[in-house]
Amino acid sequence: MAHFIPQGFQFGAVYSGVKRDASRNDLTLITSDTPCVAAGVYTQNRVCAAPVIYDKCHTPSDAIRAVVINSGVANACTGQQGYDDAVEMARLASQAVKADTDDAALVMSTGVIGHFLPMSKIKRGIASVSKKLGRDEASLEKAASGIMTTDTVMKLFSRQIVINGTTINIAGMAKGAGMIAPNMATFLGVVMTDAKLSKDSITPLLRKIAGRTFNCVTVDGHTSTNDTLLLLANGAAGGEDVSRNKAFAEALEGVCGDLARSIPADGEGASHLVTIQVSGLKTEANARKIARLIAESPLVKCAFAGNDPNWGRIVSAAGYAGIPFDPVGVSLYLNGTKLFENGAPVKFNAAKVSQSMAANKEISVDLRFSEGEKEATFWTCDLTTEYVHINADYHT
Amino acid sequence: MAHFIPQGFQFGAVYSGVKRDASRNDLTLITSDTPCVAAGVYTQNRVCAAPVIYDKCHTPSDAIRAVVINSGVANACTGQQGYDDAVEMARLASQAVKADTDDAALVMSTGVIGHFLPMSKIKRGIASVSKKLGRDEASLEKAASGIMTTDTVMKLFSRQIVINGTTINIAGMAKGAGMIAPNMATFLGVVMTDAKLSKDSITPLLRKIAGRTFNCVTVDGHTSTNDTLLLLANGAAGGEDVSRNKAFAEALEGVCGDLARSIPADGEGASHLVTIQVSGLKTEANARKIARLIAESPLVKCAFAGNDPNWGRIVSAAGYAGIPFDPVGVSLYLNGTKLFENGAPVKFNAAKVSQSMAANKEISVDLRFSEGEKEATFWTCDLTTEYVHINADYHT
Repeated sequence: MAHFIPQGFQFGAVYSGVKRDASRNDLTLITSDTPCVAAGVYTQNRVCAAPVIYDKCHTPSDAIRAVVINSGVANACTGQQGYDDAVEMARLASQAVKADTDDAALVMSTGVIGHFLPMSKIKRGIASVSKKLGRDEASLEKAASGIMTTDTVMKLFSRQIVINGTTINIAGMAKGAGMIAPNMATFLGVVMTDAKLSKDSITPLLRKIAGRTFNCVTVDGHTSTNDTLLLLANGAAGGEDVSRNKAFAEALEGVCGDLARSIPADGEGASHLVTIQVSGLKTEANARKIARLIAESPLVKCAFAGNDPNWGRIVSAAGYAGIPFDPVGVSLYLNGTKLFENGAPVKFNAAKVSQSMAANKEISVDLRFSEGEKEATFWTCDLTTEYVHINADYHT
Repeated sequence: MAHFIPQGFQFGAVYSGVKRDASRNDLTLITSDTPCVAAGVYTQNRVCAAPVIYDKCHTPSDAIRAVVINSGVANACTGQQGYDDAVEMARLASQAVKADTDDAALVMSTGVIGHFLPMSKIKRGIASVSKKLGRDEASLEKAASGIMTTDTVMKLFSRQIVINGTTINIAGMAKGAGMIAPNMATFLGVVMTDAKLSKDSITPLLRKIAGRTFNCVTVDGHTSTNDTLLLLANGAAGGEDVSRNKAFAEALEGVCGDLARSIPADGEGASHLVTIQVSGLKTEANARKIARLIAESPLVKCAFAGNDPNWGRIVSAAGYAGIPFDPVGVSLYLNGTKLFENGAPVKFNAAKVSQSMAANKEISVDLRFSEGEKEATFWTCDLTTEYVHINADYHT
């Protein structure tokens, strides 16, 4: 897939020695020729990894020159030394781009928790990768490869739009496939654009879009200590500030949505990407809560693994969300076939629906209520024996 | 196991033809010689099965003479006809005990949803079982067998206490092992006592005890449309009203706790019963929320299936409960071994802890916070490939 590459950014990755497998990159560096406006959205977990604490203190900003990311060790549950290591990692990356200050870089880590970063390896890695940066697609892909852990596919998406004559590029990379052995994994994402954004507007913009994309995907419902999404805008495309431009927001949401959906699509052991659309509620929050409970029900997910159009599990999962609704106003479609209407099952060709589930990588659930006009969409994957193998038998 | 049998009750079960397998009982009748004070605690699911709606309207009561329970069909998502069928089932059971009114019986159903009850079979079944009731242990066990679905063991517990010279018996039966093919299963429980209780006090007493027992167990976090717990007290033991007696409440909680724990112990595919004790929070509700999230984390449950003392998954699950706590005040013990202290992992013999997990059917998790003095306990089971097989491959 050809990518649109934001101007003024450079990308690279090396193997620094954090991961055991020397054939895989484990240290990614992204730099900008000029200071970026930057924002972050972070894990809601009370137990935050050191790089999350560091980045939270340094965003929003209008002086970010780099993002440095290691995979293999998450630098979580590591106390004061872990925090000092995150500070040092940011300092090394800031110096590598010859920034004016030591805190011109943001930091992300992913991998096992309860271990300290091997800082001498990280130091050598940052020195090495900073000499191998490039502006081309191969460099961008290398950077995306350096953040992968149990991911089976690289997650890299981009868009280009023209706003009042200015060509704007947006590119984003992410990692995440569930939580991993021996402790946990994480969602990490970095989105870069050459658009001009303002420091005041970038955080609400990113939060709003994350709320409709990354915060609407689930593999196993287990929130990591390291989840981080960063947005960097360096303005290299020129033109006006697009912080409040609708076309820009749509393009950014497009990249974020593609990245978000790629996570359950690559979920550990997953055989289906499942889109759950819930409509007809009084509020979007109500719709999202119901969609999430369906997306996280092990019974619903097992039924999808078995290609079974099991309306009972879906409707009953909706029922325990604590959201008031009239059961008689509920209808359900699966892959376009009506299974349930006005609170009761309808006759349908179960074998045919099951075949359509087996034949397609994607399953669509469309659950309609009669309470209001609000809707929400969630993305998840099915629950297979392979997921349990990955997460139970990793020591054997 | 010998059981204490409450006086003045009779029990029985027959095969009525609702289940496919004619070797299994599917219709249970419990009667009392005199009217019982009765209370119920019901599913929080917005989609309630017909018998739940019926029982909710008829409890608390001081005029219940019988409980009739069928397994095989849940009578859920069946609209007006389903409700009429539940009313008819209650009427048939009331007439079978020659009650003064047609609503002297409570009703429970469990099995597949979206199907109507085969009422002619139910009618013949009630007529048949009402002639085969007994007061002995074999009859009690027969009644308990008639409510089983995917349960692999019968769930029947009892206690006897003496209060001010009056000997009181409490016996309870339950069913539940997860949700079942092709749609859903259910928790059902009936607890009978010959103690004297008052109509005004029985509901708060049952709710309080359910909150600490049945509402603290989870197999897969999927709340059924049919969950029902009933308590019947006929006063046949004589003596005073024990509604507010502490020894009685403890004995009742003992029976309910044994029944509750027997459900995850028999959870679908489960290889371990897991007790999760969370302490040191500001409120019991906070402790319960954290305990529940750990109990429902697929990653924690998979780690237990693999006999892995994975402290990272447990601590991080606690972190996303939305409950404020100081991470540095967190300590964790597993099967009595300290894994984590003051917010950081400690050195421990992982192989030895893993061996203790593999060697025992039970796993104990003891997670301590430093926020307050309140605590809660939750019971769950591990997540095995067998659970996924049961819930994904039931058509093949």
